[in-house]
Amino acid sequence: MMKKKSSYNVAVVGATGAVGQKMIQLLEERDFPVQQLKLLASSRSKGTVLQFKGAEVIVEEATPESFEGIDIALFSAGGKTSKQLAPHAVKSGAVVIDNSNGFRMDSNVPLVVPEVNIEDIQQHQGIIANPNCSTIQMVTALKPLYDRYGIERIIVSTYQAVSGAGYQAIQELKKQTEEVLKGEEVTKKILPVSSLPIKKQIAFNAIPQIDIFEENGFTLEEMKMVRETKKIFHDPQIQVTATCVRIPVVYGHSESVYVELKQDYNLAEVLNLLKEAPGIVVVDDPANQEYPLAIDAAGKLDVYVGRIRKDLNHPRALNMWIVSDNLLKGAAWNAVQIAEELIKNAQ
Amino acid sequence: MMKKKSSYNVAVVGATGAVGQKMIQLLEERDFPVQQLKLLASSRSKGTVLQFKGAEVIVEEATPESFEGIDIALFSAGGKTSKQLAPHAVKSGAVVIDNSNGFRMDSNVPLVVPEVNIEDIQQHQGIIANPNCSTIQMVTALKPLYDRYGIERIIVSTYQAVSGAGYQAIQELKKQTEEVLKGEEVTKKILPVSSLPIKKQIAFNAIPQIDIFEENGFTLEEMKMVRETKKIFHDPQIQVTATCVRIPVVYGHSESVYVELKQDYNLAEVLNLLKEAPGIVVVDDPANQEYPLAIDAAGKLDVYVGRIRKDLNHPRALNMWIVSDNLLKGAAWNAVQIAEELIKNAQ
Repeated sequence: MMKKKSSYNVAVVGATGAVGQKMIQLLEERDFPVQQLKLLASSRSKGTVLQFKGAEVIVEEATPESFEGIDIALFSAGGKTSKQLAPHAVKSGAVVIDNSNGFRMDSNVPLVVPEVNIEDIQQHQGIIANPNCSTIQMVTALKPLYDRYGIERIIVSTYQAVSGAGYQAIQELKKQTEEVLKGEEVTKKILPVSSLPIKKQIAFNAIPQIDIFEENGFTLEEMKMVRETKKIFHDPQIQVTATCVRIPVVYGHSESVYVELKQDYNLAEVLNLLKEAPGIVVVDDPANQEYPLAIDAAGKLDVYVGRIRKDLNHPRALNMWIVSDNLLKGAAWNAVQIAEELIKNAQ
Repeated sequence: MMKKKSSYNVAVVGATGAVGQKMIQLLEERDFPVQQLKLLASSRSKGTVLQFKGAEVIVEEATPESFEGIDIALFSAGGKTSKQLAPHAVKSGAVVIDNSNGFRMDSNVPLVVPEVNIEDIQQHQGIIANPNCSTIQMVTALKPLYDRYGIERIIVSTYQAVSGAGYQAIQELKKQTEEVLKGEEVTKKILPVSSLPIKKQIAFNAIPQIDIFEENGFTLEEMKMVRETKKIFHDPQIQVTATCVRIPVVYGHSESVYVELKQDYNLAEVLNLLKEAPGIVVVDDPANQEYPLAIDAAGKLDVYVGRIRKDLNHPRALNMWIVSDNLLKGAAWNAVQIAEELIKNAQ
C-alpha cells in the first residue's frame, strides 16, 4: 500500500521515447498530483530539455541512484533498462510501473489492465507490469464478454502501427514512403526488428513479423498476446492464437478478433455489455459505414469496437474489430491509469 | 468443347482497366495464340490506343454486336457490364471468361481456379467465372491440404491492396499519402466503396470494409470468400469466416489464415505438399526472417505461402500467411490460365 500524500515525486524512465513523451503529456493533462517530476533517459539523451506544466525539465541520465525520494517510477525504456534499474527504484522505495516486457510474466509481478484486473495491483511487491499494447486493447474489449459468458478461445490477427516500434520506426515509414513516391531506392534500417540483421520495407507493405521468432514458429509479439491474456484473466484455459502484422499506419493498432464464448449469447446483449463497459466505445453501424479506424482512434484514450457480428458457423462465436491508440491505452495511458489507482488507494 | 484452331480471336472487355491491362500484357507474355485482339471498353475509353505485340490497337466501345467472330472474351468491366454483354458474346459463339461477380454463383456457370477445379470448365455453357481475388489465392494455397486431410473450417483476415479497387483507388492512395506527408487535408473520393456515399481515408489507415454490407453484418467481399470457397471445392460443409480489410498497399493481397483440417497432420508433410503443389511458392524460414511480402509478390504469377505453424491449441489446426498479386493470380492470370486450358482442350 502506498503512503498517502498531497502530491508525489514521479520519475519517467525513457522520457525522450515515444511512450515516455505520452506519459509526461498524460501526467499533465490528467493533472496528476506531481510534487517533483524527474525525467530520466539513456546517457545519449542526457541534457535534453522537455516541458512539463509550462516549466522546463532537464533530462538526466538514469542510474541506480536516480530514484532517491521517488514515489512512482514509470518505466518505458525497454526490458534491459527495466531489469537493470527497476530493482534499484524499488529499493529506494518507489513503486515501479513498467511498460517493458522485462517482468510481465514474473509470478510476483501483477500484470494489470485497470478495466480488467485492477484488484491485482494490491499484490504488488514494488513492480507492476503494463501488458503489451496489442494485448491491452484486446482484453479491455473482451472483459465484459468474459464476465458474462466466459471465453473458450480467441483467434486474432493484428494490423499494428509503426509507432509501436518507436520514433525511429515512424521516421522510417515516412522516409520510405517518400522514397517510394519519388521512385527512389528504399532505405531500410529499423523494421521489422531493430536488433535483427535483416530489414524489410514497411512502406506500402505488410510485414508478418513483430519481434523475434520463437521455436514454435510464432513471434514473441504473438506469444505475448497468448501468455499475457491468460495471466490478466487468471485463466490458463483461454486458448489464444495470434498473427501479428505491421502495416503502414503511424498511430493505432487494429485487430480482427474471432472469439468463441463458453455459452450461447445474444448479439443485442453483447452490444449493450460493450456500450456500458468502461474504456470501451462502440462504433458499429454498417448501414452508415461506421466502424473503428486507426486514424480516428489516434490520440484518444479509449478502445473502439465495431464490426460486431455473429459467426456464420459456430453458435457461440462472434467476430469484432478492435482499435486503439497503441501509445496511449496500449502503453502510456494504461500505465498512468495504474498510477492513478495507486494514489487513489494510498493510505 | 471449343473448336481447335491455330489461333483465336480474343476480346478483352474492360481493356483500359487495371485488370484488363494485365490481361493484355499476359496474352502477350504467354504468347497466347491470338489471331485478332479486340479491345473493348466503355464509351468513355473509346478511341484509346493500346499496344499489343508492338502493334497499336484502338479501343472500341463494347456493344452487343462487338463479339461477332470472337472465340474467347475476357471480361473485367464490372458485374453490370458482364450481365449486359456476356450473354451476347455467348450468342455470338464466344466462350466468356468473366472476372466480375456477375455470374459466379450461378449454378450453370463454373467458378474456376485451375489449380483447384480445372475439370469444371468442361461443364461450361458459354460462361466461366473467375473467383474473387481474395478467394483465389486462399483456395490455391489450401487445395493440397484439402486433398490430403480435408478442411473443416477456415478463419481468415485479409490485408488487401488498393489496386483491387482499380486505378482510381491506386491514385487515391498516392494522392492521400502525399497530402498526409505535406500536412494537407486529405481528399476522399473512391474508397472504401466508390458506389457508396461515405468515403474513408486509406493513407496510413486500415479500413475494415471492402464492398457493401449484407444483412448479417458481413461485407459482400467477406461473403464472396465464404460462398466461392464452398463452390470451388464443391463442399458446402466447409465453414469459412472472413474479415476483409483494405490497407495502404498498392499491389498484393496478404491473408492471415487459420485452418482446421479434418484429420491430424504432420507439419513437415504439409510443407512438402505445399512445396510440390502447382502455383504455390513456399517462403518460410523464420530463422532468416523469410516470409511472403506483398511487395515481393507484386508482378509475380504464383501464390506465396509462409508463417506455416501448428496451432497452439487445436491439434488439427494450423496457421499460415498467404500472399499473391491480386491483379494477376487474383484476376488476370487466373482468367488467362483458364483461356490456356480451354484451347489446350479444344478439338
